[in-house]
Amino acid sequence: MESYHLGLIGWGVVGGGVVDILTKDADLLRNRTGLDLRLAAVVTADAGRTRAQALPSGCVLSSSMDAILGNPAIRTVIHAVGGTTDAKDVMIACLTSGRNVVTANKALLAVHGDELFDLAQRHKVAIAFEAAVAGGVPVIAALRDGFVANRIDAIHGILNGTCNYILTKMDQDGLGYAEALAQAKQLGYAEADPTLDVNGTDTAHKLAILARIAFGAPIPLAAVRTEGIQSLTFEDIASAKRLGCRIKLIACARRMAAGVDLHVAPALVPLDHPLAAVNRNFNGVMISAANAGPNLFVGQGAGALPTASAVLADVVDVASGRYQHTATSFSFFRQGSALTVIDENHEETGSYARFHVADKPGVLAKIVTTLSQQGASILNIHQEAPSVDQTAMIEVITHPMLGGAFLKAISLIDGAGLTQKPTVCLRRL
Amino acid sequence: MESYHLGLIGWGVVGGGVVDILTKDADLLRNRTGLDLRLAAVVTADAGRTRAQALPSGCVLSSSMDAILGNPAIRTVIHAVGGTTDAKDVMIACLTSGRNVVTANKALLAVHGDELFDLAQRHKVAIAFEAAVAGGVPVIAALRDGFVANRIDAIHGILNGTCNYILTKMDQDGLGYAEALAQAKQLGYAEADPTLDVNGTDTAHKLAILARIAFGAPIPLAAVRTEGIQSLTFEDIASAKRLGCRIKLIACARRMAAGVDLHVAPALVPLDHPLAAVNRNFNGVMISAANAGPNLFVGQGAGALPTASAVLADVVDVASGRYQHTATSFSFFRQGSALTVIDENHEETGSYARFHVADKPGVLAKIVTTLSQQGASILNIHQEAPSVDQTAMIEVITHPMLGGAFLKAISLIDGAGLTQKPTVCLRRL
Repeated sequence: MESYHLGLIGWGVVGGGVVDILTKDADLLRNRTGLDLRLAAVVTADAGRTRAQALPSGCVLSSSMDAILGNPAIRTVIHAVGGTTDAKDVMIACLTSGRNVVTANKALLAVHGDELFDLAQRHKVAIAFEAAVAGGVPVIAALRDGFVANRIDAIHGILNGTCNYILTKMDQDGLGYAEALAQAKQLGYAEADPTLDVNGTDTAHKLAILARIAFGAPIPLAAVRTEGIQSLTFEDIASAKRLGCRIKLIACARRMAAGVDLHVAPALVPLDHPLAAVNRNFNGVMISAANAGPNLFVGQGAGALPTASAVLADVVDVASGRYQHTATSFSFFRQGSALTVIDENHEETGSYARFHVADKPGVLAKIVTTLSQQGASILNIHQEAPSVDQTAMIEVITHPMLGGAFLKAISLIDGAGLTQKPTVCLRRL
Repeated sequence: MESYHLGLIGWGVVGGGVVDILTKDADLLRNRTGLDLRLAAVVTADAGRTRAQALPSGCVLSSSMDAILGNPAIRTVIHAVGGTTDAKDVMIACLTSGRNVVTANKALLAVHGDELFDLAQRHKVAIAFEAAVAGGVPVIAALRDGFVANRIDAIHGILNGTCNYILTKMDQDGLGYAEALAQAKQLGYAEADPTLDVNGTDTAHKLAILARIAFGAPIPLAAVRTEGIQSLTFEDIASAKRLGCRIKLIACARRMAAGVDLHVAPALVPLDHPLAAVNRNFNGVMISAANAGPNLFVGQGAGALPTASAVLADVVDVASGRYQHTATSFSFFRQGSALTVIDENHEETGSYARFHVADKPGVLAKIVTTLSQQGASILNIHQEAPSVDQTAMIEVITHPMLGGAFLKAISLIDGAGLTQKPTVCLRRL
């Protein structure tokens, strides 16, 4: 059996998971695939650091890229470098040297994908990226190959385990945002600086990658309207609960009559919706395929072993020769024509509003009338008994309507002095 | 663009779905894959019958296999023939003539898979069968490729839409088994003769195919202990509900210390288990992968378009050249060594029992003592107030224990005259 030589750049969480699987599951991989995958070189900035993890015998450890680029036996490089600057240079060096690249770096592909896929095609090599979205869940392959005979109508996903863990803790244990975030950090579900997770950026990166495959077109990251979960309060969670919903950070890519809707935002998800049951640090992706119908995928979206599992699925795909048949012919590597992306005013969605009003006659009637005049049809309405300070809370959920009309109604209501503080608005799935 | 010629054998539900997609989605398939898939011939016994559906232009319709076997341009045949007799002859004719075969026929592969995969390998052609399990859900590819770097520890599936529809209706609408079955027939979710669906045989076929891939070994169908849903009563459903569960027909393939556990049986599924939310005619498959962790896949397990979606994913895989890299090297096509399969006595499972007893002192104590003496640990116990005829109902759920010990306890309890009718037993997931 001929050996297939691999290089690994980056020996952090993902790189460590790859080393772990290549060591403990070497026999399993060889028996299943007929491939003898050999880790020939690991390149990491801190090559001198003492580590608990051992490398397979014969594997070179270096802080210089030459250990990989200078070894002609290495045909595929596992790119486990975060960020979009060094990570980009490293990937370009691999691609231009004629190496296939397997990566988990969603930010890099979302921001520089057009340039990198183009470069890969010119050098006749592959970029494989199953691990970039939803970690161990094979959702890239499903979207690209499993549903190849389907127009994709919509993708709704819970794509960030940090956010989902925080929201689950707020919902199940009644924690505030700050407490839930602290707990997530303690358990390793949130990084020291969780900004890019909680502000929705990481989710937007993943949505851009999924939408590229689903719609066969480049997706500029700026086209994804993005909100995070930072300003959600326990009051929001409790209110959602009263209305039979859970708040989730939902990534949405949908075809609509006027164009494509791309957004990331917290939304009230009804308890009987399949994504409502995706809790804790799990990821979930719902794909609405024109022929196959709705399909749900749920699993671990991060972590060393789940991510490395996806990386190695790609490595086998590339090393077996399978992936090259995808890379050279499938359209998401080509430049499709740009999509018409709709703005928030034209987004059709169920909407939620929480009005804080003075408890006096006529206020409810005026709110309902204003909503109705903007075309809103009420799905659900709830009013709490007034509090000691004589203010009342009115919660409303509308049937799907245009975002612009809804926001105009809210602006009219707040502007007319009917409310005592700015009205809180959220989407409802 | 060179055309890739396809033959289709069988123009029923699945064949009709294939014709439908190849017609309406021809542009989409061509743009996405760079392949020009051309349906060159359709063979069906009733070629003379008038049909609403038209074939693509240039497609030959015939009742003779020669229309396909005699056309050297046809390289892949879509096999949409049911059963295991004619269907087998037809597949053998295609394989031996050097054609790749794409099939949705789970019974054929479960019963004659060893022989057919062997034949395919000798003739250097592929048998692709994504559509054979869970219809439009790409679970075969996930298990084979997505989790290639994982030992598979367990698969738990809801694999038959007919059974799941019946059980959902019994649970949600309080219907009896016969009523629910009648409704399923009316909606086209059950065939005129639903025997192979409701007695678990169809589910066992699908489990055998999944287990073959998961464990890389031939799975004799006789090794799958199989029970159906025919004798479930409304009382069972109501009792499960009281205990916070739903009854589902669960296909289970698990590695245990003593060997592999393969069974199909109705089981109480706790409401917070992901499979409890798989309702109506949906299928759900939960794969416990050693590195990727638990993964859930849910979607349409049957129907013309979902099944045809999976068939065409396979067609693209074969026509693009991808699949051949799988077929020649992946171990589920080779003969792995036979597995040790454990019997029911050695199956470790949570168990449910419903005892009908006389309402007199000491009976409950004796039942609990007998269970305890056989090693049972009680998770949940519930006693209804005695009915007018002075009988009481005691429902018990145990923690996981050996099936043999549990059944011995039941036999001792029934044998000791403690119960007034045979005790009802079910598994609990």
